[in-house]
Amino acid sequence: MLTNAWHPNGTRIDPFAPNYAAGARAMVASEIRALFAEAARPEVISLAGGMPCVSALPLDVIGNMAGQLIGGRGSAALQYCTAEGDPGLREMICEVMKLEGIRAHPDDVVVTAGSQQALDLVARIFIDPGDVVLAEGPSYVGALGVFAAYQAEVIHVPMDNDGLIPEALEEAIRRLAAAGRRAKFLYTVPNFHNPAGVTLSPPRRGRILDICASAGVPVVEDNPYGLLSFAADPGRPLRADDPHGVVYLGTFSKTFAPGVRVGWALAPPAVRDKLVLAAESALLCHSSLAQLLVRDYLSGQPWLEQIKIFRELYRARRDAMLDALEGAMPGGCRWTRPAGGFYVWLRLADGLDSKAMMPHALSSHVAYVPGTGFYSDGSGARYMRLSYCFPSPDRIREGVRRLAKVIEAEIELRDICWSPTKTDERSLAVRATPPR
Amino acid sequence: MLTNAWHPNGTRIDPFAPNYAAGARAMVASEIRALFAEAARPEVISLAGGMPCVSALPLDVIGNMAGQLIGGRGSAALQYCTAEGDPGLREMICEVMKLEGIRAHPDDVVVTAGSQQALDLVARIFIDPGDVVLAEGPSYVGALGVFAAYQAEVIHVPMDNDGLIPEALEEAIRRLAAAGRRAKFLYTVPNFHNPAGVTLSPPRRGRILDICASAGVPVVEDNPYGLLSFAADPGRPLRADDPHGVVYLGTFSKTFAPGVRVGWALAPPAVRDKLVLAAESALLCHSSLAQLLVRDYLSGQPWLEQIKIFRELYRARRDAMLDALEGAMPGGCRWTRPAGGFYVWLRLADGLDSKAMMPHALSSHVAYVPGTGFYSDGSGARYMRLSYCFPSPDRIREGVRRLAKVIEAEIELRDICWSPTKTDERSLAVRATPPR
Repeated sequence: MLTNAWHPNGTRIDPFAPNYAAGARAMVASEIRALFAEAARPEVISLAGGMPCVSALPLDVIGNMAGQLIGGRGSAALQYCTAEGDPGLREMICEVMKLEGIRAHPDDVVVTAGSQQALDLVARIFIDPGDVVLAEGPSYVGALGVFAAYQAEVIHVPMDNDGLIPEALEEAIRRLAAAGRRAKFLYTVPNFHNPAGVTLSPPRRGRILDICASAGVPVVEDNPYGLLSFAADPGRPLRADDPHGVVYLGTFSKTFAPGVRVGWALAPPAVRDKLVLAAESALLCHSSLAQLLVRDYLSGQPWLEQIKIFRELYRARRDAMLDALEGAMPGGCRWTRPAGGFYVWLRLADGLDSKAMMPHALSSHVAYVPGTGFYSDGSGARYMRLSYCFPSPDRIREGVRRLAKVIEAEIELRDICWSPTKTDERSLAVRATPPR
Repeated sequence: MLTNAWHPNGTRIDPFAPNYAAGARAMVASEIRALFAEAARPEVISLAGGMPCVSALPLDVIGNMAGQLIGGRGSAALQYCTAEGDPGLREMICEVMKLEGIRAHPDDVVVTAGSQQALDLVARIFIDPGDVVLAEGPSYVGALGVFAAYQAEVIHVPMDNDGLIPEALEEAIRRLAAAGRRAKFLYTVPNFHNPAGVTLSPPRRGRILDICASAGVPVVEDNPYGLLSFAADPGRPLRADDPHGVVYLGTFSKTFAPGVRVGWALAPPAVRDKLVLAAESALLCHSSLAQLLVRDYLSGQPWLEQIKIFRELYRARRDAMLDALEGAMPGGCRWTRPAGGFYVWLRLADGLDSKAMMPHALSSHVAYVPGTGFYSDGSGARYMRLSYCFPSPDRIREGVRRLAKVIEAEIELRDICWSPTKTDERSLAVRATPPR
């Protein structure tokens, strides 16, 4: 039955089209997805991906650990477990969060397949089509993808070098209220923001919690990079000061390894119960093997020492990138100076477009992520995200040199073709949209 | 800020309630979920769970394999991968499906976190709230949970000992058409049905494909147990005869181990593209470690021999259960005789209710799953699912003896309190609802 009603001869029309859900009809591959194939070519220095440097892990030691786990407790490690996750791992997750000042009970933790799944579950329990989600502008591309999949309208709230601007948040909430609407939640990455590279200042944290509590807007705090601070102290999460109004998302992808896909959500009990039900529907349960491996790693290995190794490694790469940017970038470009995490957010000189420039960059063998991927409203063309997490410092320096030449050539082209209008030069690199 | 707007003193009202999505407000824990905690007590013989017997795997060998994988290729195994999954694993998945007669290209395979995630992704791309899904009656509880989460209306199509009844399927489609509606897809488990234990007969397979193709109803074929046939030949999947109209779901949970959460969907290209986008939004990517572990297992271990070991083991347990049922069950009870897979579906004598009986069973230290869990319309109270996959043959025999005594006591109670009306005794154990 190679030709049937589903496959009339010669047509390329999708026979399933009438069967799709409304949301699925609009699904298209992200720009970043298409880009990654190009950026993966060996001759290209990729400053695009956010891949942690897992080769800095003691792979033999972890291999032995995995061997002993399966050989000794394989009947548990290879079996199903409960949807909320392994109890021992949930206890250890509470210990990890305690480092940042969070006091939590393991019962309020749900283990997820990376924090991406946590985001998906949060969206699933909160978002109906047409609902509003507040998020920084720019915001994490993977979160925007989830919100789009659930057909949310994302309203971006501007940031500056101190993170999300409280007045802008108030204004956004006020405008919504004036239109008879209320956001389902605020999605925020307070520490070492992806992609903006900035950190929410301590005085703003309390203000943002107050604003959200007054407005009945829960906060979804995504904190993948919190422990990767280049300063001595990790920043104090919003959740540490508000156990009732914050859903906190964490992950071992950056402090251990993304290949195990182990993250978590910490949520107030009512929300946590719904997350467990949603998790059960989505996956039945997460991998026991992955969970027990992380548990063994946390209980048997010097994981805090390993985090220090990662911090030093990423700090050296951050320094390499900032030095190279300082030395090579033409005038008119501005960038953030991250105090942790993986990313620098760069604003191009007047009249330049990071997306339009991308083919030139790729032919010069350097890749980045154009800023438009981090906005749901089509803005961000003047920006780009540069990652320093994966390439070696030498490669970073060479990558930045290549990029600077591409930008210089674009500026020359601009000066031939284009007469700039006066734009605001004093605003900070992350300030993409005015407060509304 | 331990007391704030989210947590007014002394109230137990969920402050998040106004923020939930419509679907989430209706989320409640499944009956089976609550039951499993009870059934897990060591004194209870559980014929409830569908846990594969992973202790029959060569755990030391798999442990060594995992150790070598991480030690030698940890930089890949612990890193992110692409949303569609590891290319080498997808090639091997095509080899696995070839055993059943499916010809497929690795590009049309999406690796998922168990087939549960595949089900979730299929529901996500096809179902809008209020849409109709056709499914066997009874149907897999995990699929019903997913369909409910996406707010689908499930219409059950009756089965008999030869599986789904084609005339009943035609009738259901006709009734929908008369009401101006069309099902988004037919969800079916043709081989060794969970929970019914029956297999769709070969002559019916072509008819069902024809009926669905004529009606524009795609088939979602869920085949977790296909290779666990107690006969020599695995049944030929629907997908083998219709590459264009069938989305096929497979898993390594039963032929290898559920703890790695590796399953897949094989779909026509247009559907496959949407599944990849949905998978990316849901998880970014599946665990590289889990995927490479399964790939190494398939390429380096005698996995077909291991499947034979599983088949013999489950066959012996099936025999133990059928013998025990034959020897112990009181008159008026009927059950299916599975030719593979994990489950027997038992119909109680007139006037008995498996859900009402459950507390008595638990106090007699035996557990099963009440039939109501496998219907979305509240029917199935006269039925129960008995699993023979996990307990040893001796425990199965003892469990069935305990269960028979509970049923006998219920029958005695019934005969004291209740005068049966004449009911149809010739219908088969799986026939729960008349064709509509």
